[in-house]
Amino acid sequence: AVSVPDVGSAGAFIRAHLAAASPLPPITVRNWMKEVIWFNVFVVTATPLLSIYGLCTTVFRPKTAMLCVAYYLWNMLGITAGYHRLWSHRSYNARLPLQYFLAVAGVGAVQGSIRWWSRHHRAHHRYTDTDLDPYGAHLGLWWSHLGWMLVKPRIKLAPVDIKDLQNNVVVRWQHRWFFPLTFVFGLVLPASIAGWFWDDWRGGIFFAGFLRLTCVHHSVFCVNSLAHWLGETTFDDKHSPRDHLLTAIITLGEGYHNFHHQFPMDYRNAVKWYQWDPTKWFIAFCSYTGLASHLRKFPDVEIQRSLLTMQLKTLNEKRNSIPWPVPSDELPVINWQSFQSEAHQRPLVLISGFIHDVGEFMDQHPGGRKLLETHVGKDATSSFFGGVYDHSNAAHNLLATMRVGALQGGLELLHETAVPPCSKLQIVRWS
Amino acid sequence: AVSVPDVGSAGAFIRAHLAAASPLPPITVRNWMKEVIWFNVFVVTATPLLSIYGLCTTVFRPKTAMLCVAYYLWNMLGITAGYHRLWSHRSYNARLPLQYFLAVAGVGAVQGSIRWWSRHHRAHHRYTDTDLDPYGAHLGLWWSHLGWMLVKPRIKLAPVDIKDLQNNVVVRWQHRWFFPLTFVFGLVLPASIAGWFWDDWRGGIFFAGFLRLTCVHHSVFCVNSLAHWLGETTFDDKHSPRDHLLTAIITLGEGYHNFHHQFPMDYRNAVKWYQWDPTKWFIAFCSYTGLASHLRKFPDVEIQRSLLTMQLKTLNEKRNSIPWPVPSDELPVINWQSFQSEAHQRPLVLISGFIHDVGEFMDQHPGGRKLLETHVGKDATSSFFGGVYDHSNAAHNLLATMRVGALQGGLELLHETAVPPCSKLQIVRWS
Ligand code: HEM
Ligand code: HEM
Ligand SMILES: [Fe+2]
Ligand SMILES: [Fe+2]
Ligand SMILES: [Fe+2]
Ligand SMILES: [Fe+2]
Repeated sequence: AVSVPDVGSAGAFIRAHLAAASPLPPITVRNWMKEVIWFNVFVVTATPLLSIYGLCTTVFRPKTAMLCVAYYLWNMLGITAGYHRLWSHRSYNARLPLQYFLAVAGVGAVQGSIRWWSRHHRAHHRYTDTDLDPYGAHLGLWWSHLGWMLVKPRIKLAPVDIKDLQNNVVVRWQHRWFFPLTFVFGLVLPASIAGWFWDDWRGGIFFAGFLRLTCVHHSVFCVNSLAHWLGETTFDDKHSPRDHLLTAIITLGEGYHNFHHQFPMDYRNAVKWYQWDPTKWFIAFCSYTGLASHLRKFPDVEIQRSLLTMQLKTLNEKRNSIPWPVPSDELPVINWQSFQSEAHQRPLVLISGFIHDVGEFMDQHPGGRKLLETHVGKDATSSFFGGVYDHSNAAHNLLATMRVGALQGGLELLHETAVPPCSKLQIVRWS
Repeated sequence: AVSVPDVGSAGAFIRAHLAAASPLPPITVRNWMKEVIWFNVFVVTATPLLSIYGLCTTVFRPKTAMLCVAYYLWNMLGITAGYHRLWSHRSYNARLPLQYFLAVAGVGAVQGSIRWWSRHHRAHHRYTDTDLDPYGAHLGLWWSHLGWMLVKPRIKLAPVDIKDLQNNVVVRWQHRWFFPLTFVFGLVLPASIAGWFWDDWRGGIFFAGFLRLTCVHHSVFCVNSLAHWLGETTFDDKHSPRDHLLTAIITLGEGYHNFHHQFPMDYRNAVKWYQWDPTKWFIAFCSYTGLASHLRKFPDVEIQRSLLTMQLKTLNEKRNSIPWPVPSDELPVINWQSFQSEAHQRPLVLISGFIHDVGEFMDQHPGGRKLLETHVGKDATSSFFGGVYDHSNAAHNLLATMRVGALQGGLELLHETAVPPCSKLQIVRWS
């Protein structure tokens, strides 16, 4: 019953789902009018256009500007600390006041209810880079940034477990009242603050409303586009997510996305203290106040393992890109007799059981031509290793590149000195 | 005649020399008056003391300050580009005008003739960190910075080849006239410039003379002390030399000393364009003007090899410092029958031929407790590898830490999936 496991099944579930899904047709010049979700198109085009109109016609007052920044940060936290790390990934527990604070902050970002957002996000993690990934990170920057939400989903959303969200009172409340809530907190409230307190209704609508919202939208969208495109695959290169400071700055810390996809239930996106992850700092602060608890961390040793595995992989690629001394068993075996007679033709020196042609090196030898000449046809091992001069590791490595043969009988016991320092540690692949 | 080479000889030459050398006795409270080289002690104590006296009693005029800096740089170049890279290491060829320029620049640094300096320096390279190293890098910062030149050499200077220097007209000339030259260019000339051109004789003597000389001395001494103590062993850790930006700044670029000891005949000390090596830039400029030629470089591939070897070594140390999954042949082999009966006691899951205890992980599983429960006592290989969910490499690594046994017959053909991603590349040591 149990023998060699069947990995032909990798992706079996995905293939089965795709086969049963009857995807919608590709979008063409003919059908796009029918396939587009007009409401979404309207929102993402109207907000930037109205922002620009505002910038051209309205004075941007300092107080309103400060409101924009504060409101932007609040909305962003709603998405990053709330929608994303709390509800999509359950990376910590939050008390009800904090949940309401985050639910309302997130609703003002105008990008769907927690329930809708987290369901898609969980599918994105579960099916990253496959055709079941709703954001389609593998389909290019434009599609993953915006395109995917402007047309009807081509493939029915694959199953993900959202029972926890269905049972959560805050999530249920926010989903039920989503449209009024998003209108009030996405536009009415910020506009009214500027209008009411410093009588800047126009600025409130255009800047605190539309301009701030445009920024929130595209900052968050960058997690799906930029974070799957720009930066390093620090912990794993199986999938597209990448770590980059720039994305982190744009997204309150969500830019260490390679880490995040590898350790999605970790409340941190950045592990190092000096990396930019204000969302993590916010959650840690909430935990300090008691509003958050059970902050989840992936075991540190697993994080180290992933990191070192990638570093080893990178190093191995670099090592493979330059030549290394020929392995001893690929060299011709030469007997003492032929070594002696060949040494009359060209300057051959025996060191550590290997025969070296030092012809081209003679005049470049820092120890001088003479010392080499006197050892032609002889064993210079002990001279080379300290009898005359204890050569550096670099000299030893260089020596190995001059090998032309192995002396018969000289290598029966492969000695320490026969292995150049550059070959003492080897990277081998399991196979 | 030729079999396994004899490396008992590493250091044979050094041991033989030491045995025959009859070293002077260690310095004690009793004998130090006799062992000290009073002239050297006088020079290195008088210069800083006179500098301080000058600073307390004399106005430091801007013009004199600029002269100090210019003269300092000129002396430093004399030592770094001249004494060191040209004459000690023959790392390039210089035409006579450049040689005289450097010989005179160096003589003003008041640290012996080219011949004396280079002979010691060659011995330092040849016998680094041994008792034949005249600077004694292994004897601590104070000794290598200054101590070694204040007492009679404890051990007769070991032989080094300086035939090239004995044949060089500039070196011979400078050695012959060393004392008058060093007095004129080390003190008289800089003092006279300030005195003659802007009537600052006192400033000329105390600042352009003594203060500048103190700085030149200790900058150069840092190459023997700081550069063997502070920084990274980027290319080799067999010996004490280290690479550090700070030392490079103090010494016109000689601070990449690990590189330099590994590749001493390279005219560069820093290989990267963004590293601070003004001496290299000066030599390159001289080559552009035709005053220098035959700039020597060690083959780039050898530099890469050394670098990668050290990186691999560092990575290996990091890898050895954290735990890794138990190798499969160290696990107990369990047959199907015992697996079944034990699975009634504790939650055992079979994946890739290994039996895992998932007890502690059940409640932390991001995919939920249920999915694990339903696989207790069963083979979950294909579910784990995509049948239900295609787990990340981190999940795969984590899984390997839960191994408690290998199923009998389940591993006859060790399959790809049985090796966690963190173990796919291994570092092995030649032995
Ligand atoms: C083909 C074989 C050899 C190679 C590739 C080689 C390479 C080198 C290199 C790269 C150096 C510079 C210092 C260092 O990196 O350690 C050096 C220095 C030296 N080599 Fe060799 N060497 C070879 C054979 C020998 C032999 C057979 C002798 C002696 C019999 C010898 C004697 C010396 C000495 C005395 C120095 C020191 C020069 C000095 O700093 O004064 N070398 N060699
Ligand atoms: C002891 C063995 C297992 C370990 C160590 C493990 C570990 C993990 C980890 C770390 C994740 C987070 C995502 C990732 O890193 O890929 C995860 C998610 C998941 N696991 Fe497992 N798992 C195990 C067994 C299983 C089994 C046997 C199944 C299915 C029968 C399963 C189904 C899932 C599913 C469906 C998810 C996705 C949850 C979601 O994102 O919606 N796991 N598992
Ligand atoms: Fe992602
Ligand atoms: Fe996520
Ligand atoms: Fe040194
Ligand atoms: Fe040197």
